[in-house]
Amino acid sequence: MIRQERLHVQGVPLILARPAEPVGWVLFLHGAGGSKERSARLAAPFHERRLATVHPDAPLHGEREAGEWRFDPKDRANYLEGVVRAIAAQVEELPTLARALQERGELAGLPMLAAGASMGGYVWHELISRKLLRPRAAAILISSGYPLDAPHDFLEGHAGLLEAYRNPPVTRAAAYPPTPLLHLHGARDPVVPLERMQETIAALRGAYRERDGRLAAAVFEGVGHELPEAMLEQAAAWLEFWSRR
Amino acid sequence: MIRQERLHVQGVPLILARPAEPVGWVLFLHGAGGSKERSARLAAPFHERRLATVHPDAPLHGEREAGEWRFDPKDRANYLEGVVRAIAAQVEELPTLARALQERGELAGLPMLAAGASMGGYVWHELISRKLLRPRAAAILISSGYPLDAPHDFLEGHAGLLEAYRNPPVTRAAAYPPTPLLHLHGARDPVVPLERMQETIAALRGAYRERDGRLAAAVFEGVGHELPEAMLEQAAAWLEFWSRR
Repeated sequence: MIRQERLHVQGVPLILARPAEPVGWVLFLHGAGGSKERSARLAAPFHERRLATVHPDAPLHGEREAGEWRFDPKDRANYLEGVVRAIAAQVEELPTLARALQERGELAGLPMLAAGASMGGYVWHELISRKLLRPRAAAILISSGYPLDAPHDFLEGHAGLLEAYRNPPVTRAAAYPPTPLLHLHGARDPVVPLERMQETIAALRGAYRERDGRLAAAVFEGVGHELPEAMLEQAAAWLEFWSRR
Repeated sequence: MIRQERLHVQGVPLILARPAEPVGWVLFLHGAGGSKERSARLAAPFHERRLATVHPDAPLHGEREAGEWRFDPKDRANYLEGVVRAIAAQVEELPTLARALQERGELAGLPMLAAGASMGGYVWHELISRKLLRPRAAAILISSGYPLDAPHDFLEGHAGLLEAYRNPPVTRAAAYPPTPLLHLHGARDPVVPLERMQETIAALRGAYRERDGRLAAAVFEGVGHELPEAMLEQAAAWLEFWSRR
């Protein structure tokens, strides 16, 4: 029995889904163009492992949609502008939101775990590398620790994105360990190329001194920019395992 | 409560470990120099997911040790000879053993799943690629679909190994799908180089037409030729997930 509630916490609309007697809770961040409803529909593998999940609408998404930003990759300039704004605003609001969630009776005392898909995975990289939040473990899906590709003229007008290009999250590698971090990726991802994920792992590996496999990457052949069940299962198993450590 | 029994089935000494109401059973093949006892000690992540595990002593190992073969990698010729003999004998005996196990009351009707570490993973590649056994899913740990490296003069005297060099399991890629197959590997494995595992995936990817992530590889940074708990957890989650499909 999963109990699902729609809440507003710190002004952020979200879905909180709880199995009986949860052993941890996952802050699950959706990708560009996604919503709390769509990410909540993917959460069964987490619930089966007695992990509660929290699905906030990202800024400019779901109930917070402004109309101006459509997150249609074909309208490139509008897409980039929307994503850059959503990322900046979400990095800003999540530390306060996470603290408010941790103080709720249903989640109090439980370890917080990180899951993020695409844009949501990048937001977790920003949060961890800036030491704004410290999850017990992280599962980053179809994403990387580098900002999304944007043309030069777009970059020039966006100081924050330009700064992220010069100093992407992975340049702050020392901030990550000992957080167990699993990247999961489709081998044929046309949006976030597999190489970008592999570069992320390469940039972080020197910082992890532990030899217990807490920095890892799983690649799924034939999979594009999507989240097959097999991938979500591996992500959920990772978070459940480390939540016990 | 895990019920553990020591049995001889078809003349093979093995450990059968069963959780209450298992949903599948894992034929877990150990590596060179290993034993049923050592692989049984690694099986908790499988049992927690209600998978029974069967741990046979490989030929020339454990109770079947002949004395002549010490599986000491430093004594290279003796090691190679022992491994080549153990692989050939195990590929020969496992189809009959697996059928006998499937007919036992405790396992009847449950899907068979494959796990194998190092030498045991290679044995699974031989079995699957020759269509001698068809597990519901496979998790291959610190291994590859290529025979182990051996010097030329050794190869010349071993027709079977020479044949495996010319036609390694992965050249029979069409025999693998739709079996879900996850390879798990340490990034710093000095015995089975990571590249050998990556070549295995590359050789198989063309044969998998399914786009549901059933061919995958997980790499654990900082890990050598060893089986950290985090790796075994991902393997167990994989087998449990596909056992339900």
